[in-house]
Amino acid sequence: MAYFDNAATTYPKPDVVYSFMDSFYRNYGGSAGRGGYALANTAKGIIDETRTLIQELLHCSAKQVVFTPTATIALNMIIQGVIAGGAKNIYISPFEHNAVTRVLYNYERRGQITVTELAVSQSLEYDLTRIRYQFDATKPDFVIVSHASNVIGLVAPIEAIFELAKEYNAITLADMAQTAGLIEINAGLETIDFAVFAGHKTLFGPTGISGFVMKPTINLPSILFGGTGYDSANQGMPNAIPEKYEMGTINIAGVAGLNAALKWIKEMSVERLFFEEEKRRKRLLQILSSYDFLTVIGNNEGCKYVGIVSCLLDAISSDSAGAIFAERGISVRTGLHCAPKAHQFLGTFPSGTIRLSVNALTSEKDFEELKNALDDIEENL
Amino acid sequence: MAYFDNAATTYPKPDVVYSFMDSFYRNYGGSAGRGGYALANTAKGIIDETRTLIQELLHCSAKQVVFTPTATIALNMIIQGVIAGGAKNIYISPFEHNAVTRVLYNYERRGQITVTELAVSQSLEYDLTRIRYQFDATKPDFVIVSHASNVIGLVAPIEAIFELAKEYNAITLADMAQTAGLIEINAGLETIDFAVFAGHKTLFGPTGISGFVMKPTINLPSILFGGTGYDSANQGMPNAIPEKYEMGTINIAGVAGLNAALKWIKEMSVERLFFEEEKRRKRLLQILSSYDFLTVIGNNEGCKYVGIVSCLLDAISSDSAGAIFAERGISVRTGLHCAPKAHQFLGTFPSGTIRLSVNALTSEKDFEELKNALDDIEENL
Repeated sequence: MAYFDNAATTYPKPDVVYSFMDSFYRNYGGSAGRGGYALANTAKGIIDETRTLIQELLHCSAKQVVFTPTATIALNMIIQGVIAGGAKNIYISPFEHNAVTRVLYNYERRGQITVTELAVSQSLEYDLTRIRYQFDATKPDFVIVSHASNVIGLVAPIEAIFELAKEYNAITLADMAQTAGLIEINAGLETIDFAVFAGHKTLFGPTGISGFVMKPTINLPSILFGGTGYDSANQGMPNAIPEKYEMGTINIAGVAGLNAALKWIKEMSVERLFFEEEKRRKRLLQILSSYDFLTVIGNNEGCKYVGIVSCLLDAISSDSAGAIFAERGISVRTGLHCAPKAHQFLGTFPSGTIRLSVNALTSEKDFEELKNALDDIEENL
Repeated sequence: MAYFDNAATTYPKPDVVYSFMDSFYRNYGGSAGRGGYALANTAKGIIDETRTLIQELLHCSAKQVVFTPTATIALNMIIQGVIAGGAKNIYISPFEHNAVTRVLYNYERRGQITVTELAVSQSLEYDLTRIRYQFDATKPDFVIVSHASNVIGLVAPIEAIFELAKEYNAITLADMAQTAGLIEINAGLETIDFAVFAGHKTLFGPTGISGFVMKPTINLPSILFGGTGYDSANQGMPNAIPEKYEMGTINIAGVAGLNAALKWIKEMSVERLFFEEEKRRKRLLQILSSYDFLTVIGNNEGCKYVGIVSCLLDAISSDSAGAIFAERGISVRTGLHCAPKAHQFLGTFPSGTIRLSVNALTSEKDFEELKNALDDIEENL
């Protein structure tokens, strides 16, 4: 078995993530932060520490960290909240995930907002000059950019795009589901209002814990409501971050796993994790390029990427291709990857692509298994 | 240390919950159900099996199971969805949690809905005759009842209330956060449209996985949107249950833990778990009643309860009382328990009560520690 679906969820996790999640939850899995007793205080301590680790990782001590169960829920809270706050003209990258575009579509279909894709050239470069024209034509209220495409791994120059967006006083949101902990970014920049992270992807944590960082001066209306174990007599949500956005019981088992993962990342260093992933991305590209029946999609040597590669298998639909890989013990993801607009942009809609994604833990043995599988596929074509 | 905060989260869990969660996530923690490969299929298998276990437990094979990260999110999806579908006159029990009342308040404060409390007598009995008068005066669109109060453990006769509600064609929702797996209920009854469960409370599972069962014929508008790994080209949510409501990556580590917990409950049996909890509730009441400085709140011998008891400590505010217990190694929860309306009804608002909650795993050693602590508190009063 060789796992090439790290863009869906990294697997396996560093051993310390499994072991600390298990031991912490066994020993301290009482109610977190909502009782004054020792167990609750220990649980609260690990949550606070994990918040600080996120701030350190993203260089955003001036921003506040909100934990959510999934990045999708974080995106719903931010996007629906910003729209409730009045945003009408919304710009997105051509590579957004359904966790962004389906949220927007719910408002777009009723004519409540307009959604425009930022100008990106066919050679995959964000065209800042054309984007400025776009912004001049229709002033942006809200600009949403996936830091890296979950289909082809292309990294967007969010600093430059958001700097431009701020000239028009737009609110900005970076979806870092595929980059947090992998690409050094200063999410503390004044130009970044919101940045979303997914605990179980590039952060190497478990499923069930994600979140976002936000500029504390922004008034983000709530779209989800519930108990906060704090200010309970108030029937509105408390007016404090993170409490306003952290309703219900936090996934303390998940926080413990994320805590261990963030410490592991700190020890490894973001630079090294990217360096190791980049080496493996190149190895993957080299392997895929050596087979005539495979065509790599969306790769421009001049651009920056994370370890996600899409390809097509000649004359075979992506769905069938998935089974062909699976039969040979290779875990890949085929189809639209929940990002139909990215495939429309790339010309691979509606059948999609075969996606292989690596990270710093992908081993040479994995690559050998992939090569054996590809040899076997070639023979049986 | 003695833990009496099981109403917040059960602790500890049965050992098999920790061990299966750890081993499953280590061995099969790839992407669930969204790749055709072996790991993804194993993960999908455990999700499907867990759905079936929920249906069996709640006797509702005719209902469909939706997993959500928390019961709070489940309540938001249902309540906001039903209101989006047009519900205006909403009835709730006097014991609802902020996960219900804060969601409603967001619409109530804008005059979009009216919220009325169902008639309950001072002796804590739901008054079905008066409730019928209430329904005759203002026809109910939506009736929400906590199956058991998270403050005093009082169990509501939801079958009778919902049968009455159905005479008026209301939509019905049972919040089973404190009862799923503990009280035998036929959630398959035609009169129950929605029932919410919390994985980490009475179900003995981990944090980060909860959900609801729903009648498949109900059209519940979506309030959260995102990727479903299915029907991805559609920018609306797919029109299938559970996919329509399960956006984003499911917490597969949590599902594994819940799976083990549900099998443990099946082996123990719901009747036995209730019987054991009821014995311990009586033991707790006996202990608390033997101290003159404690006053038990909301206990009527003629009513049915789960293992949650609220009390007051003479002349000491609930918040200070929490520290007094914590110092002596006893984990209790003080204040409003995220249910201010319940305390208003009980006359314990705004300072709240001291809540102690037991379950079938509470040991005689826990009770001995509690008695020692109470003796010590008595001496130092």
